[in-house]
Formats: sequence, C-alpha cells, structure tokens
Amino acid sequence: MASRETTVSDGSNQPEAPLPPAAEPSKYSKTTALKSILNRDDKGQGLVGRRVVVGGWVNSRKERAESDAPGQLPAPRAAAAQSQDVSCYDLLVQRVPFLRPIARILVGVIGAQPEKPAASPAKEGPFTVYLRINDGSCSSNLQVVMDSSMSLPGQVITVGTCILVQGVLQKILAPKKHVVELRVEKILHVGVVDVKSYPLTKSRISLESLRDHPHLRPRSIAVGSVTRICSNLIYTGHGFFQKKGFIHVQTPIITSMNAGNHGKMFQVTTLLSNSGGKDKSAAVHEHEGVDLEAFRASIREKSKRIDELRRSDSNKEALSAAEQDLQRSKELVVMLEKQQQSTAPSAGEMDFSNDFFSRPVYLSASAGLHLESYACALSSVYTIGPVFETDESKSAAKLAERWMIEAELAFTELQDVMNCAEDLVQSLCYSLLETAGNDLKCVSKQIEKNCIKRLKSIVSGSFARITYSEALNILNQVKDKSFLSKVGWGNTLSEEQESYLADELYKRPVIVHEYPKGVKPFYVRVSDDGRTVSAFDIIAPKVGVVVRGSQKEERMDVIIKRIQELGLPHEQYEWYIDLRKHGSVKRSGFSLDIEKMVMTATGLADVKDAIPFPRVRGHAKL
Amino acid sequence: MASRETTVSDGSNQPEAPLPPAAEPSKYSKTTALKSILNRDDKGQGLVGRRVVVGGWVNSRKERAESDAPGQLPAPRAAAAQSQDVSCYDLLVQRVPFLRPIARILVGVIGAQPEKPAASPAKEGPFTVYLRINDGSCSSNLQVVMDSSMSLPGQVITVGTCILVQGVLQKILAPKKHVVELRVEKILHVGVVDVKSYPLTKSRISLESLRDHPHLRPRSIAVGSVTRICSNLIYTGHGFFQKKGFIHVQTPIITSMNAGNHGKMFQVTTLLSNSGGKDKSAAVHEHEGVDLEAFRASIREKSKRIDELRRSDSNKEALSAAEQDLQRSKELVVMLEKQQQSTAPSAGEMDFSNDFFSRPVYLSASAGLHLESYACALSSVYTIGPVFETDESKSAAKLAERWMIEAELAFTELQDVMNCAEDLVQSLCYSLLETAGNDLKCVSKQIEKNCIKRLKSIVSGSFARITYSEALNILNQVKDKSFLSKVGWGNTLSEEQESYLADELYKRPVIVHEYPKGVKPFYVRVSDDGRTVSAFDIIAPKVGVVVRGSQKEERMDVIIKRIQELGLPHEQYEWYIDLRKHGSVKRSGFSLDIEKMVMTATGLADVKDAIPFPRVRGHAKL
Repeated sequence: MASRETTVSDGSNQPEAPLPPAAEPSKYSKTTALKSILNRDDKGQGLVGRRVVVGGWVNSRKERAESDAPGQLPAPRAAAAQSQDVSCYDLLVQRVPFLRPIARILVGVIGAQPEKPAASPAKEGPFTVYLRINDGSCSSNLQVVMDSSMSLPGQVITVGTCILVQGVLQKILAPKKHVVELRVEKILHVGVVDVKSYPLTKSRISLESLRDHPHLRPRSIAVGSVTRICSNLIYTGHGFFQKKGFIHVQTPIITSMNAGNHGKMFQVTTLLSNSGGKDKSAAVHEHEGVDLEAFRASIREKSKRIDELRRSDSNKEALSAAEQDLQRSKELVVMLEKQQQSTAPSAGEMDFSNDFFSRPVYLSASAGLHLESYACALSSVYTIGPVFETDESKSAAKLAERWMIEAELAFTELQDVMNCAEDLVQSLCYSLLETAGNDLKCVSKQIEKNCIKRLKSIVSGSFARITYSEALNILNQVKDKSFLSKVGWGNTLSEEQESYLADELYKRPVIVHEYPKGVKPFYVRVSDDGRTVSAFDIIAPKVGVVVRGSQKEERMDVIIKRIQELGLPHEQYEWYIDLRKHGSVKRSGFSLDIEKMVMTATGLADVKDAIPFPRVRGHAKL
Repeated sequence: MASRETTVSDGSNQPEAPLPPAAEPSKYSKTTALKSILNRDDKGQGLVGRRVVVGGWVNSRKERAESDAPGQLPAPRAAAAQSQDVSCYDLLVQRVPFLRPIARILVGVIGAQPEKPAASPAKEGPFTVYLRINDGSCSSNLQVVMDSSMSLPGQVITVGTCILVQGVLQKILAPKKHVVELRVEKILHVGVVDVKSYPLTKSRISLESLRDHPHLRPRSIAVGSVTRICSNLIYTGHGFFQKKGFIHVQTPIITSMNAGNHGKMFQVTTLLSNSGGKDKSAAVHEHEGVDLEAFRASIREKSKRIDELRRSDSNKEALSAAEQDLQRSKELVVMLEKQQQSTAPSAGEMDFSNDFFSRPVYLSASAGLHLESYACALSSVYTIGPVFETDESKSAAKLAERWMIEAELAFTELQDVMNCAEDLVQSLCYSLLETAGNDLKCVSKQIEKNCIKRLKSIVSGSFARITYSEALNILNQVKDKSFLSKVGWGNTLSEEQESYLADELYKRPVIVHEYPKGVKPFYVRVSDDGRTVSAFDIIAPKVGVVVRGSQKEERMDVIIKRIQELGLPHEQYEWYIDLRKHGSVKRSGFSLDIEKMVMTATGLADVKDAIPFPRVRGHAKL
C-alpha cells in the first residue's frame, strides 16, 4: 500500500515577502499554536500581515470558484449545512471530477462506486478552498484559505485531514466570530484521510457515538475542551498543594492490602498465561508432562560430579556449591512428586508463591492508607493518580479506573480538612473560570449551557455545612417531594436526597458531616457519642459527592477494636496499627474524584465522556 | 489497652505574654511549619520572641539537671553520642526512676524487666529536656526546650514521639547550625512510642534497614529529603509542559494491549478468588514447596560468579564447570516454573468472558501509544503516572511499578523532541538547585557528596549528541579499558559502555541517536537507510538511560510492515494503524524515568530507595 503521507508542495513559486515573524512560535516545532493567534485579546488582529506556519486537522471544508467575487466569503452556516448532508468523500468526488480516479485508488475502491446524483453542479477549473482547522491548543478553529491548484494530485483535503501550511495572516473581510484567517503560501505536509472509513466526517457527532472510536474522539472540539479542562484541574490541583508546602507522594498502584470498606478489587498476577495471543497452542503444549525421570537423572549426574570433585580434591567452593545445588534438586523432586499426586487446585486454592510478588496483590482502591504513613512523618502530603474498583453503582456504570486527588494532613481535625477540601474545590473551579474561559464557552454551547453559572456559584461563597442528623431533619420536613429511599438514621443518603440538598435547597455545594459509624470505613475517627464518626462528604450540584473525607482514628485501642468489629484481617493492618503505636498524631484527609469535577465543570451527563480512556464493566478499549 | 494519645497539658499556669503572632502559620492546622521558621534567610532570627505552635516527631533527646548553669546547652555531639549507645527506653527508665512503673505498663511489660546497671547516675528532681523535632516540611530539625515537669506521667517523650507544643522562639546562646530554638510553654498533644518495638531509635539507620519498615521510613531525614526531591520533580515536570501549552492526558493503567517491545506484563483479573483477604497469604506461608525464588537467586549468584571468573581470567576448568552448573540450574528452574504454572489455569484454557472486562487485560507498560492518539488531535500532550513491567534487568532488581513523565508532540521530528527532552532534564535539575537546596545539602551529606556538583554539570551546558555509530567508533577506540560486551553494530550499548560515555568521556549527559532498527520498538520511524531508526536515549552520569524517545513511524505502509515483521497481533494494532490512515502527522515523543532522575539528583545507589513504595519481584510490602 502506498504511503498516506505526501511531501512538501509549494503552491506558489514566488519568493517569500519579507514579513516579520509571528509572535510565539512553538518551541519544539515549526508551528505556531492556534491558541497564540486566536486566543489573544485582539483575536489575532495585531498579527495581521505576519507569516506563520500552522498545523492542524480539518474540521470543515468549503470552496468557491475563482470567478466569484474575490474577498467575499461564502456564508459559513449555509455552506457548512450543505456539506453535512453528504459525506466528504461524496462531496469531493461529485464536485471535483478529476479527483475521482485518484480518490478511488486512495480509498481502495477498485470496483464500481455508486455515483450519486450531484447535489450541486460540479465546479470546473481552479477554485478557492476554505478549511477550518484545529490543532488542539484551543477550542477555536482557524480559517485557512488556499487555491485548489496548490495541493498535489492525491492530496484530497477533506474533514479529518492533517495539514501543515505556511501562510500569511489576513483580516476576514466580514468578521463574525473570528477576525483573522490564513492565506496559504505553501503546503508543507498533508496527512490524508481514508474518507470511506473515517467515522468523523459529520461536523456534529454525539458524544455517545464518539465512544466507539476512542482513538479518534479527541478530534471532536467538545472532547478537546473536556480534555483541556481535565488537564487544567490536575495542574491546578498540584499547584494548590505545592504552594501550601504539601509533598506529593507516589502511592503504590499494586498493593497487598485487599480489604477495607471498598468493593471488590482487581487482582494483579503473572500466573495466567501472558503470551499475547501468539502461542496459545505452544503454551498448552508446554504444560504437558514434566518428566520426573529427567530430574532424577540429573540428580544422579550431580551426585557423580560431586564424587569426582571430592576425589580430585579441587576447589572447595565449587564442591560446596555443587552440594547445595544437589540438595535443592532433591527438594525439587520431592515437591514435584507431591504435586503430581495431588489434584490440580481450583482458582480459589491457587498457589501464589510462584506469582511475581509471591503473594496475592491487587490494584489499589485508595491512596489513603499509604498516604497516612507519609503524613505521620512529613505532615502534609497529597497524591494525584488512579485508583481502581470493580463494583458497579446501582444507577449508572461506574468507572473501574478513576483519577483522584487525595490529601492527608497531620496535626488536623475534621474542621481543618473540611476547610482544605472546600478551598481545593473552589480553587479548581476558580482556575477554570480564570484560565479556561474559551473551553467553558465551548462546552456550554456543545454540552450544557449552565456550566459557567454553576462554576460561578461554587466560587461565590462558602459551602453549606450541616451534620448528617441535620440533613435527615431537613429531608424529613420536605413535603412537596417523596423520596424513593427511606430517610432513617443510619442509612446512607440516596443520590436523590443528595441532589435535593445541593441542587434544590442550597443551590451550591453542601458539606454533610458527622455520619453514622456504620456507613463509613473502619479508619474514620469515632466521635465521643460512640454512634457517629468524623467523616464528611462534599455534595456538588448536578454530580453529587465529589469529595469524601474524614478525621482518621489516631487511637490505637479504638482502631484495633474497629478492625476486629468489622472482621478485617488483623495481620494485614499491622503496619497501619503501628502508625498509632509509634508517635501517633491527629490527622485527617480526603479524596476528590477528578471525573466528578470534570462533570461539574462541563455538565457532562455520562462519566464515560469525562476522562480520556474510560474503563467500565465489559469495556477496556485500546 | 489504653489510648496512646494523651490530652492537653499546660506546663505553666502563668498567663500568656502578649506576643505578636508568628509569621506564616499553616492554613489548615494550628501549627507553623518548621520550614517557615528554619528555612528563612535569617534562619529564624527575625522571629525571636514570637509565639508559635509547632508539631513534629522527635529525632533526638537530651537532658540536663535544672541545677546546671541556665542557658548553657549541653554539647550536642557528645550528648547525642551518649544517647545512641542505649535504647531510649533504657535511657529513660534508668534516668527517671519514677517513670519506670508507667513505662512498663505502656510497653506492655508486666513481668520482670531486666534492670541494666545505669550508664550514668540517674538524675533526680526536675530537669530540662532538649528535643530535636522534624515535621517533614524541611530537612532541618528544630530544637525544643522544656521542663521535665511539663509532661504528664505516662508521656515518655523519646525518639519517634509525636509532639504538638506551643512556645516562644528564642536565640540559641551558642548558635552553630541553627540560631533559634523553641522554649515550650504548653504541651498540646503527645503521641508516645512503644520504645520496646520501635525500630528507628538509632539516630543513623541505613537505607537498607529502613526498607524493612516501609510505613516508618519517611521519618528518616534522608528519606524525607528524597521524597521532597521526588515531589519537586513531579511538580516541575507538570509546570514545564503546562507552561508550554501541553495538555495532560490521563492515559489508562488497565489496557487490552499486551504486545509491543516490552517485557512480560501483569495481567489484571477478577477471575481469581477475591474474597477479602481471608488468609490467602497464610496459605502461601504454609506452602511447603521448594522456594523458586531461592533458585533464581542462586542462578543470579552463579552468573555473578562466572562473570568474576571470566574477569579474573583464572582456572578455565572452574569456569567451564561453573557454566555447566549454571546451565543445569537454569533448566531446572524452567522445568519447575512449568510445573508450577500447570497448577494455575492458563490463558488457553481460561474463559475471560466472565472476567470484568470480558477479555484479558493488562497493566500498561507505557503510555506512549495512547498518548499518540491524543497527539493526533491535540498536538502537544503529556502524562505523569505509573507504568508496569515484570521483567528483571540483568544487573539489578528493577522496579515493577515506575512513575514516568511521557510526552508526545505532533508536527515534530527527532531533533525537536531531543531538544524538548534535554530542556526537560535541565529544567528538572535547575528547579532542584533553585528550590530544593536544603534537601540537596542533606542528601549530599547523608547519601552521596557529589550530587550538587552533578546537577550543576547537567544544567551548565548542552548535552553531548552522537549517533549510535559514532558511539561505537568511540568505544572501539578505547584502549585503556576492555568492555565485557562486544561493541558490534546492532547490539544495544551495555550499561558499562553507556557509563563510559557519560561518566568518563563526556562527564555530562549524552544523547545517543539513530539506533539500529533491531534494538528499538516497532513504532519508531525507519530512516531512509532502512537499517537505522529515529530513536534516541539520554544517558546521564551515574544512572545511565533516563530518557528514551523517538520519532514515530507516521507512514501507514511502513508501520503495517513493521507489525508484520515482528509478528505482533495485527488486530490489536488496528486502532494504532488507523491513526496513520486518517490525518497522519509527523510526531515524536519520549519518556523519562522519574526514579532515575531521583537517583541522579540524590546519588542513591539502589532504585528501591528512590520511590516511596518500591515494588520488585517478590516484594510488594503494604
């Protein structure tokens, strides 16, 4: 198959005019990021006349005959609407007859191609092409104008094509959203699209259908904005803690801790065959018959050699090594004999002594316990990274792999850490409002219109703070609404009840604290009443719980009792108890769901759209 | 058992003097971080007379009788040396007779406690206690001075104890390293230590022995510095990319991609029994089989010995015998592995339709491929997170879980990304020199003295850049040194050869580029000569390769051919090929090993000390 990449094409043979260089070219490529043109306060006006190299992927394509009045743009809306009705392949082949044979070869269509009747009369001769391209640096597209004669035969520049072009920024004569466009001088690179199989030719594709193409979905303008918002949250999170002197700790993903208050955990193993689908038959073959007799023969040989070594009175070291080796081989045979006698164990009885870590290990469901051990030395620590859980929530598919911001603070009590978590949530939202305005505008157009208003309401004042018992009182007094779940002391709040508090009653985030002991994990500090624990949740409008936190139980006798009460394996928690035995400190921590923050900020309804590569039950694409 | 926590104790009943508040109290706790006292330019001098609350863990304890001349400190060195010779428990019980019964109860010693003869005559009556405490905010300790009468009975303040105290900063009369100390007014909180079982009572403990106590090792001053350095690197990495407009992408940990150029991968499953840690590990301990790991260790030992024999050029017979022996041992282990594997279900036999993702999935060995899909839409992307590999390097235990900084840049070629990686490495080192000076001083004292010099040499100028072929020429001309591995075109460079280039020849980082096709992964761009590929490594002094990078193969026909050549499963790479089929772009990327950067910065010799929770074959503590 021929390469999809074509080389430099110079559309104009004229020498380059001596123009000043563009502002802010990217440090590591020839291109100028579109952001540094379009996101300027003047929308690029001040760069008119500058020569720049830009690259990006084509989001829409229009064209008009050269004979039309120059400098007069085709009405963008109408043209865009027109091109949405037919695929780009169809459009091109219909309009540009001489491209037909080339396009057919490119898309591998050798046989008959059904020729649809042309939607509009095909334009003959040279024409002007208007491309809108995006390079992912911002949500705005740059309009790129070129003569059809510039592209080489075979360079079918359709939606999805990657182009790298040099040109001069010029004013748009009838500016609407944008005020500058690029008049192309040179095409430096074209990465064409197989239009027959490219799934994103339509200019508007639902987020749901994008999920079927996880490797291409970032080319959607909306997904680009969501990704930049997510990136903003993660960096702001780091900055929030680092500026306050917190230390980032890389807590482990692989852990031997498998209990606690979490759902089922993923197990990590090298015991299952791991040959990548290459040699399954060979793998099976390998398992057939281990020849015990061969081992016995090797033992006889070794004994013989040891005798020789003894006789030759040579190297004592070699003799001792050989003897050790023989001893091991003998042990091995004894073991093999035992194994052959016993029946093959089921998965439940698996022998993990031969697994990579010589024991069962799991994917960590929370960084909390590990962070605590560092907080009991470095005082203020945090981590940003993934956690894993296999259970599904009742209402919607839950991510099996989630990124969290988790923090642990020594010398603190519940109120301190509630303050810290509230500040973090506000700081994340504030940063988006300050630095991601264009992406917020994009998602408010494409995903949900209220998102900026919601972010502003979150940063505008303190969160409501009520105890769990107060929350129950409030919910019990609601007359105009009947909740599906019972509002009784000791139950968790349902999503519906949480939503009532944050979305309807307070219309801003609510911190609920002092929960019943039974609904929170073993490590949460038991209050003096013996019934409640020092835990809190931050419930945000639209998305529910975004933060869970607590003061940790610092008293050794109490934590031991809690571990016993809940039937957790004491030996697994010895190190955790040890933190109370040696220099215990009052400490508190919390964890924030990044994908929930993304949903708050964007108004996304499905968690599977909130992160780049969602993993849910049954689906781990790529 | 009684609580280990004791409550507020007011040592002085005098009203508090009206002192101005201390500068920079922590936002979320009552304490002032020691950093904001001790790391000031004036070392805290300007805060003399201020009242502060500080918390931390006791690193050393000295005492003197009240009757001694007031304001005269005991000689710190001598006193420290004295207290190192006996355990803190012994010391206390010897010196403070009235504490004996209490201490016995606290440490659970009910019966006879062997009474050692007092090393020095026990001091009777009130005395002054000098504690050095650290709160993890910096590597410096604060000296805290209090009257023995202040602590409640039972509050045995030994090494490892956590204290929270209020006091007034005062000048040290004979200042050496520090100029201020804290005169305690009130003890707010004490978290005592079980001195009988606390493993870190000695003031200097080797990093190796600290590994046995992963939950307590951050209390070592050196480990604290290493952790802060690591945190600094991660935050600087984020800043480096964010300031240049790169977008952070959360690449997945769980992936269905299991082939490529990586070692064996961990498999992730819910098929194995997962019932909450009910004695799975006990079953492992009870297992009476032959310890396979012991065999593997013996093979490593034998290989080492053979290397020695080869180098020493000694007895050929001994060498040949040793080689035969090694060969036999290897065969045995292979057989044993097969036998043990046969007790586990193999992939060929397993039905993954019941697994969580309905297919076999793995822990990602690299974010590179996933990043590429986002680079082909958002242009400049990066990620900072963990990757996983199960293979062991030949020379030393390799981490199974490593944190990496990975980046991918569209519209770039090899030179661009080499520049970017060089800038990143220099930026990381520069940030440490600028902002982590005290931690670097600490590790240069406690770990390796050259580390600051090395960091300065890395930032002082450009890295050397040579092609792989040039590197071979250089190595072949080395006369005064014979390398163990052959220097032939097509081989990878050995660690020894890499070290020669970076440590001896250039004495700064070296970028080696244009490697033979055979030693680099399938996705690296094939050069025009057909023999080499556009890959590069950055080799740093002392630690070897810290960065691996490459220009990616953007041509569809070439990538398909490479996948076929290497026998990789085509169906797994369809999406990856798709990125070339639809709008392909020239792109390049690299990955940087964070733990290698930590080792460069600190001089740590063992990778297991470079990250908070190391996972290596056979060990996943906590």
